[in-house]
Amino acid sequence: MERNYSDIKGVKELIDICWAKGMEYVIVSPGSRNAPLSISFAKDDRIKSLVIVDERSAGYFALGIAQQTRKPVGLVCTSGTALLNYGPAVAEAFYQRLPLVVISADRPVEWIGQDDSQALPQVNVFGQFVKASYQLPLDANNPDDCWYLNRMVNEALSKAQSGRLGPVHINFPLREPLYGVKPYPNSIERVIGKINSVDELSADTISSIAAIVNSNQKIVILAGLLHPQAELNELLAELAQNKNVVILTESVSNLHNKEFLPCIDRVICSIKDEEIDNFKPDLLINFGGPLVSKMVKSFLRNNKPKEHWFVGKEDHFIDTFKNLTSHIDVSPLAFFKQLLPLIKPSDSFFSDCWKCRDAEVSEIHSDYLKNIEWSDLKVFEQILHAIPEGGNLQLANSSVVRYAQLFKTSAALTYNSNRGTSGIDGCTSTAAGAALVNGKTTTLITGDISFFYDSNALWNKYLQPNFKIILINNGGGGIFRFISGPSGVDELEEYFETVQEYKAGKLAETYGLDYFYAENQEEVNNMLPDFYAANKRAAVLEIKTPRTVNDQVLINYFKTIKSKV
Amino acid sequence: MERNYSDIKGVKELIDICWAKGMEYVIVSPGSRNAPLSISFAKDDRIKSLVIVDERSAGYFALGIAQQTRKPVGLVCTSGTALLNYGPAVAEAFYQRLPLVVISADRPVEWIGQDDSQALPQVNVFGQFVKASYQLPLDANNPDDCWYLNRMVNEALSKAQSGRLGPVHINFPLREPLYGVKPYPNSIERVIGKINSVDELSADTISSIAAIVNSNQKIVILAGLLHPQAELNELLAELAQNKNVVILTESVSNLHNKEFLPCIDRVICSIKDEEIDNFKPDLLINFGGPLVSKMVKSFLRNNKPKEHWFVGKEDHFIDTFKNLTSHIDVSPLAFFKQLLPLIKPSDSFFSDCWKCRDAEVSEIHSDYLKNIEWSDLKVFEQILHAIPEGGNLQLANSSVVRYAQLFKTSAALTYNSNRGTSGIDGCTSTAAGAALVNGKTTTLITGDISFFYDSNALWNKYLQPNFKIILINNGGGGIFRFISGPSGVDELEEYFETVQEYKAGKLAETYGLDYFYAENQEEVNNMLPDFYAANKRAAVLEIKTPRTVNDQVLINYFKTIKSKV
Repeated sequence: MERNYSDIKGVKELIDICWAKGMEYVIVSPGSRNAPLSISFAKDDRIKSLVIVDERSAGYFALGIAQQTRKPVGLVCTSGTALLNYGPAVAEAFYQRLPLVVISADRPVEWIGQDDSQALPQVNVFGQFVKASYQLPLDANNPDDCWYLNRMVNEALSKAQSGRLGPVHINFPLREPLYGVKPYPNSIERVIGKINSVDELSADTISSIAAIVNSNQKIVILAGLLHPQAELNELLAELAQNKNVVILTESVSNLHNKEFLPCIDRVICSIKDEEIDNFKPDLLINFGGPLVSKMVKSFLRNNKPKEHWFVGKEDHFIDTFKNLTSHIDVSPLAFFKQLLPLIKPSDSFFSDCWKCRDAEVSEIHSDYLKNIEWSDLKVFEQILHAIPEGGNLQLANSSVVRYAQLFKTSAALTYNSNRGTSGIDGCTSTAAGAALVNGKTTTLITGDISFFYDSNALWNKYLQPNFKIILINNGGGGIFRFISGPSGVDELEEYFETVQEYKAGKLAETYGLDYFYAENQEEVNNMLPDFYAANKRAAVLEIKTPRTVNDQVLINYFKTIKSKV
Repeated sequence: MERNYSDIKGVKELIDICWAKGMEYVIVSPGSRNAPLSISFAKDDRIKSLVIVDERSAGYFALGIAQQTRKPVGLVCTSGTALLNYGPAVAEAFYQRLPLVVISADRPVEWIGQDDSQALPQVNVFGQFVKASYQLPLDANNPDDCWYLNRMVNEALSKAQSGRLGPVHINFPLREPLYGVKPYPNSIERVIGKINSVDELSADTISSIAAIVNSNQKIVILAGLLHPQAELNELLAELAQNKNVVILTESVSNLHNKEFLPCIDRVICSIKDEEIDNFKPDLLINFGGPLVSKMVKSFLRNNKPKEHWFVGKEDHFIDTFKNLTSHIDVSPLAFFKQLLPLIKPSDSFFSDCWKCRDAEVSEIHSDYLKNIEWSDLKVFEQILHAIPEGGNLQLANSSVVRYAQLFKTSAALTYNSNRGTSGIDGCTSTAAGAALVNGKTTTLITGDISFFYDSNALWNKYLQPNFKIILINNGGGGIFRFISGPSGVDELEEYFETVQEYKAGKLAETYGLDYFYAENQEEVNNMLPDFYAANKRAAVLEIKTPRTVNDQVLINYFKTIKSKV
């Protein structure tokens, strides 16, 4: 069956290749120069095409989809500043290792700098935030141009999904007329396959690694940001039986087992100077993306293990603790799959030491939480229990993701947070994109500064009834009140905390979301069932907490743990 | 008198130099890494320091200030994606020739790519959208570091204001601790002056130019985007007396005289093929920034004058009409000041030809407007008459600025529009920044897509009672319904026009603005006095127009002119 696409050479071909290489969604932002692309994606029935006006929000929305599907997600915009609005999401995708494919329409190069509308130098505009940047030929009618175009698009789509995943940028100069279409036969252009070598270590290598592991009494395995991986989870659960191994995870590691320690901060803060030798590893094995916990970074920087191995497909050294001794360039799954059969039991006390402390701190935590007043911390206890099983929990930057680390994670949830670069600028858009594709109740917990920053996340037609926003409104950026530097300066309220009194109700109304409001524990308890039961449209639950109490409750939390251990 | 600033070397010095080089305002966005800068700017009483959370909006707000004051305006943000959010405003500033000074806090370079929070390669991140990019030394304690820092900051501030004005980027890596302050004596660090050569042509050059002008019977002088310049206006008014000279201006040229032709589109559209020789110039003299009118560009590209001179301080050729023959590298003011005394009277019919046509079209315009139904065009007629004298009129992209060109400009107003790159992404923030500093009633006319895109413009504490937003809500991007390409495609409503039903009332309420709503001529007439009289806070007047009528009214407008001439 024939189908119409733009009559400009390369447009239909690009869509063919995107589809063949696994793209399922493309987010288009309206414009004129990108008409050949938007019209063709709209007419194509293989890739779902959505329209979001604000490119900044569109970028993060696409990132939210990629986070859930781990497949390339397209972004299509017109020429000019439109493209620059993708910048934040592209940088986040680079550090969060997600395969965004930016396809920007451009003016022909001879129009750049000629004071013509929406013309600026777009080539390579994302610099080091993309894995690669491609400039497609204009008017690709010469056979060599066509060959070049095909090869670049193939490479771009493969590169985004190979090794360390990441964004790529395809810049497509297009000459008028832009709106012509013509029928194409139902065949697709050349798709270049990519066949990778096996992702494993040689037998010799793994046995020498295993020998080191087996001879070591004090091993910390530390997981950063990861997508859920059931097989990796099982391997690590087995490894955690070994008494010389402690496995520290974060909320966004998406690893769950009763032998793992998912509340790093509250355990680390309890370690007294004289106990450090009991907790300090001799061998640190680390994998996954960025870590949330400042405390674990500080602990491992100040107390250097003899060896630190980073495991993962990376193209440069990531020396988070300033003591990297080896980069093991295979995936964590491949590594632990090979390692596990070679591991021998140990009679070390190391893991017991950590697990006992974890249990002890867990009790102090519970006792403390019972008696505290209404505050951010109290809210977290309440709402984390209420997140429906099987759901996706999206944690905004940066107070929220830190608070969440103080509570045990649930194996019944998946966890996400924009910890690639830890910006507050697209947390809601990301969660909205995730909710569209993951088929789960998707709860975003966010603070008021992040929420208002990204309020354009609500300005689109794709918010689903499974999308639930819990907005903890503490009247400003509460994190600055907690950290010691700004809390002592005269400029705290204006220059750091940014005290504000805005409420979200009218925004929710403007964009057609259900809205709930609570300002104490009882109201939250009463609201939560209705909030989760509402199933006609997306919903916001705004919870008001006392700005000047929150920091004291949190400071005392850590003080209490330290003093009671 | 001593005053406290950050104890990090270079911070107070940077502020000294910014102040000495004319900076009056800095917009700070909250963060931790930029604490030394935000604390120090807050404590300084020479430069006014404002806090705006969303860096994209902050960037455009700063641009709005620079547009009015033509002095360097500072932007201070933390590390990470914060900086990338300035991208759109920086590109706009580059093409609008405005001196933004971006000062970004950064992590020390050794932390880049180490999966640490908010660390990404910031050096040179704005590529060709800044005039220059500077990386300050970290820990500038060595005397050579201090010398280097001082020189770079001096150069950055001078460069932004020299020749073709434009943005610069100063990246400032800062190491912890970030919050220390110490007293500094009341003296300032070295400020390097910049003394420029005289901005004029040699006597020989100008007389040979004048000879060409005097011998020419058909001269079009075409002004693009300019800030108001009374002296230039007077010179051109005098030149317009010459019968071989026609002066075409745009709304944003800020040039006003009864002899100028400020409604280019409606005159050009009336020129029939057989009349082209009467209207086509032999010599085109063009100056100022980008042109709004597509019609004049098309007319001059298709009907090449024998010579095209571009007058202005530029570092590259701007060949807007594909027929540039000379770049005259002095300011328009200097050029016309030298030229005018050498000009001789002419008996050409050229200017009469244009002026007669202009008068004829003007009558057709008035007749047509009398009888049209309620529509965007009708609204423009109504509101343009109501803008208070002495005010500033901010025209959003892109329908609005095009509609406004169909009406005569008023010498009692100043006009602005983000026509550097013609993005819709920051029109409201720009107008808000302008309103803060210009001491005038500042009216922004905007469409609904631009308005919702930049709704974060309302999320700050600096909206003034003199700031008036007229939102023409036609339920989508009406411009796509008008232009011939998209209006014919199946995807019009979803992929181009982006049909939407949102209203602005609740947004206005959320952010504390007065709100008025009208959906016919009478309601607008009734509302306008109250809207302008309201003087406690900023105000929005939302005017609903019929989405599917507007394009027909406008298409018929041009048809009517063509047929009746």
